[in-house]
Amino acid sequence: MVASVKRVALVGGTHGGELTGIFLVKKFQQSPHLIQRHGTETICLISNEKAVKIGTRYIDTDLNRAFNRQDLQNPQLTNYEQLLAKKIARRIEEEKIDLIIDLHSTTANMGLTVILHDNHPDLLKLAGYLTQVDSKVRILQHTLNQESSYLINSAEFGITIEVGAVANGLLDAKLFQETEKLIYAILDYLEADKKGQPLSVPLKFTYYSAIGTVDYPRNEQGEIRAMIHPQLQFQDYQPLNPGNPIFITFDGEEIFYQADETVYPVFINEAAYYEKGTAMCLTRAVMGNG
Amino acid sequence: MVASVKRVALVGGTHGGELTGIFLVKKFQQSPHLIQRHGTETICLISNEKAVKIGTRYIDTDLNRAFNRQDLQNPQLTNYEQLLAKKIARRIEEEKIDLIIDLHSTTANMGLTVILHDNHPDLLKLAGYLTQVDSKVRILQHTLNQESSYLINSAEFGITIEVGAVANGLLDAKLFQETEKLIYAILDYLEADKKGQPLSVPLKFTYYSAIGTVDYPRNEQGEIRAMIHPQLQFQDYQPLNPGNPIFITFDGEEIFYQADETVYPVFINEAAYYEKGTAMCLTRAVMGNG
Repeated sequence: MVASVKRVALVGGTHGGELTGIFLVKKFQQSPHLIQRHGTETICLISNEKAVKIGTRYIDTDLNRAFNRQDLQNPQLTNYEQLLAKKIARRIEEEKIDLIIDLHSTTANMGLTVILHDNHPDLLKLAGYLTQVDSKVRILQHTLNQESSYLINSAEFGITIEVGAVANGLLDAKLFQETEKLIYAILDYLEADKKGQPLSVPLKFTYYSAIGTVDYPRNEQGEIRAMIHPQLQFQDYQPLNPGNPIFITFDGEEIFYQADETVYPVFINEAAYYEKGTAMCLTRAVMGNG
Repeated sequence: MVASVKRVALVGGTHGGELTGIFLVKKFQQSPHLIQRHGTETICLISNEKAVKIGTRYIDTDLNRAFNRQDLQNPQLTNYEQLLAKKIARRIEEEKIDLIIDLHSTTANMGLTVILHDNHPDLLKLAGYLTQVDSKVRILQHTLNQESSYLINSAEFGITIEVGAVANGLLDAKLFQETEKLIYAILDYLEADKKGQPLSVPLKFTYYSAIGTVDYPRNEQGEIRAMIHPQLQFQDYQPLNPGNPIFITFDGEEIFYQADETVYPVFINEAAYYEKGTAMCLTRAVMGNG
């Protein structure tokens, strides 16, 4: 795969309030030499300009759930993000983009998370390489199917970068600089491969494979009736064992994790996922080979 | 003042995305006995229901800048929040509310900040008492003038509670519980006073007096061209000395604090203040007497 990638799209602003990616893309638009590398052409794109301007996640619906193949071909879907998705998918195709790097941020404490959406071994190697670049890098494997509707679905290969914890609507300088270095590391890796001087990948590294989601406890009206337990808050990628506290009600009653298996939760208390019925995503830790 | 307070309004949702106050008010609405105290009546209010429902700070304009006396009497101001402010001000008057406690949260690391808006010595004593209740309590003196336009302006006395750091649109359980205890402490203090058994206030305590604001460096188009410096991020209430780094540009150039005086910044990197031209508020540390 790495050898075949010729054109990369670096995307920010798929969610309008996630400033890290937006300001990085603006920086690269002003200083394109920073992302020029031998053998690959990288274009920059602010995907949801209108949402960025207003500072909201989206106008009508989540743009990053609007790229389902059937939906893109459905002329009856005409809200703002549905039309925008069609326009972006067309552009990605016309520009012959092989790889999309979609820059997101999260209110969960996910450090520098590299999300892989298919099982291509070259992509996993690239991610393994990145774990050497910064100790905050974590690899999350979230395999997509035919029904998937993410922006990265519009190219053959996609990587989503999720950095956090950071609130929407603000810039954390440290995270901005770390994300910038991560992007350079990806482009450097591709370049080295093109030059026939591949960068070394650790022999073994851990990645986290998504196995499902957990919703908040809710009442009959669908309102949440508990919060993430203080012991779990900000503990993304840490082991959650059967019997560990997971939620706490508004009256202070603790709710415990009931299962047989130790898991590694991520996206714990992501603000945008309250409406999606997701208090956290559960993962298994897996050993990867370089 | 404390002796004259008979009716308290506990307000949440003045900004729709600040969930701590919203869920506390909902809890008290369901369990009103929790805030019943001898000698004072406390009513609960979600001030901007529509913004709460959508999860945004406001619909048309900031509700907490819509309570200027002249504006409330101006029949030409008819956007959603302008009309809402008139309705709330009428209700506060009809309900004969003496004291408003307005519950906010912030993306800045302000712990449990109690903001006082006038120089009444009894209010300062109450705040001094609260510093004993939780070591995260900080007192911010932000005196209002005739032109002030905050919701708390609609009663004789007002206290704004700002808790953080917490992102908009999510609940942090620890902060929720700490804020709840702070509210009980305020009500307990008022009750003890009514009973003629005033609670003890520390002989000396520090409070922070607002002296001005600092905006982000901006380009000619008004866009920010630097971020809060990593060394200053989350350092609310810590001394900022002349020569300390304050901002960092997107290219990594450091910008230093140029002044003669040590100050104590607060509201550092509050997401909602980017649009207000405020990167942080500066304060002086002052010794208060109990």
